[in-house]
Amino acid sequence: MEQIQRTVRHFQEELETLKTRLLEMGGLAEEQVRMAVKGLVDRDRDLLDQTLTGDQPVNNLHIEIDSRCFTLLALYQPMAADLRTIVAAVKINTNLERVGDLAINIAEAAHRYTLHPPVKKLIDIPRMASIAQTMLRDALDAFVRRDVDLAQQVLREDDYLDSLKTQIFRELLTYMLQDPSTIEPALDLILVSRHLERIGDHATNIAEDVIFIVSARDVRHHTTDIDPLPPA
Amino acid sequence: MEQIQRTVRHFQEELETLKTRLLEMGGLAEEQVRMAVKGLVDRDRDLLDQTLTGDQPVNNLHIEIDSRCFTLLALYQPMAADLRTIVAAVKINTNLERVGDLAINIAEAAHRYTLHPPVKKLIDIPRMASIAQTMLRDALDAFVRRDVDLAQQVLREDDYLDSLKTQIFRELLTYMLQDPSTIEPALDLILVSRHLERIGDHATNIAEDVIFIVSARDVRHHTTDIDPLPPA
Repeated sequence: MEQIQRTVRHFQEELETLKTRLLEMGGLAEEQVRMAVKGLVDRDRDLLDQTLTGDQPVNNLHIEIDSRCFTLLALYQPMAADLRTIVAAVKINTNLERVGDLAINIAEAAHRYTLHPPVKKLIDIPRMASIAQTMLRDALDAFVRRDVDLAQQVLREDDYLDSLKTQIFRELLTYMLQDPSTIEPALDLILVSRHLERIGDHATNIAEDVIFIVSARDVRHHTTDIDPLPPA
Repeated sequence: MEQIQRTVRHFQEELETLKTRLLEMGGLAEEQVRMAVKGLVDRDRDLLDQTLTGDQPVNNLHIEIDSRCFTLLALYQPMAADLRTIVAAVKINTNLERVGDLAINIAEAAHRYTLHPPVKKLIDIPRMASIAQTMLRDALDAFVRRDVDLAQQVLREDDYLDSLKTQIFRELLTYMLQDPSTIEPALDLILVSRHLERIGDHATNIAEDVIFIVSARDVRHHTTDIDPLPPA
């Protein structure tokens, strides 16, 4: 009896650590995005280089979190809400790693961009970045607090991000048509806006998982004629 | 005893069904990609419309497979290799759903492309598509057959896909610089090449998961001082 209580306590502690680690990873990925976009806006190549070489901690956490999820599933065989939370953590972890990759892609495009004269003053791109970062933070907060309202707010923000991306595209197209020397740098800005849109997509994926884990029935049975394995 | 054997048999049957469903989903996603690229090359708007409205089966399978993974984890509490396979299935499922989305993105760009005169005869884009489709098929085969060599071949193919993407970009940039009327349609071709590159990335993700599930130690212990929960 005492051992069961101790095991349950350990499991809950491990689950809390898992959530903390996901938040840390989200923070690191978001910081990478922030640096990449600041490097672009300030044309700061040192900052961009720092971003380009700074994804190791995100990648390390990706492996660690994956491993934690696996260990929790293997050792504790959690049911219902806990199981849903851990499966969601596996997916969220994948999404956050992709955000880290996208920060690198942004820094790469930004680096190429600084090789040309600036096309225009950048206003909408930092705005997109700020929205995408907020979405990411809110999605992770929604996960930790199991907050469906906040998750739904993330889904709504995504529409705004999409409309900004379209607006940026149209504006840059005008520049490119008027002055072919802007084509190459404008293309990199278009790519950056698409990378930011995809960061919003990853935040959306996380928010959708939150809505699923909070609102789903306890266990979904799709199959019939299954006997649960009796305890060994 | 008889019940345990029956349960184990049911579990193995369910696991086989899960793999079959993942292959089906891969086939559907690949077919969507094939149709989108054929629609682009042939400037066939009917085929593009068919692609744009044809993602429901992929999305339905995504939900079904997610649910199957969850049920398998909840009812059978699998260990070691089986657990790794199911966790990998959760991730592969996410990757395949994204491939379905990318097919839609390709069809959207292709649709816009057909509103302009063709920029050039398309050779490298269908080549990219063919490589990405093969990578996807090989990655899924590698998963089902637990074939690390095939998975590693997928990783190598990805480099070729990336180099084709860069080549397409440079060529289209030349067109855009020479004739601004090609800027808009050329941009859509650049986007298509990036969508195809990302399909290759998803195949790569799957291949990496295969390498992990086949080569990993049986259970990874990152934590210490954990007592596994005794059977309830």
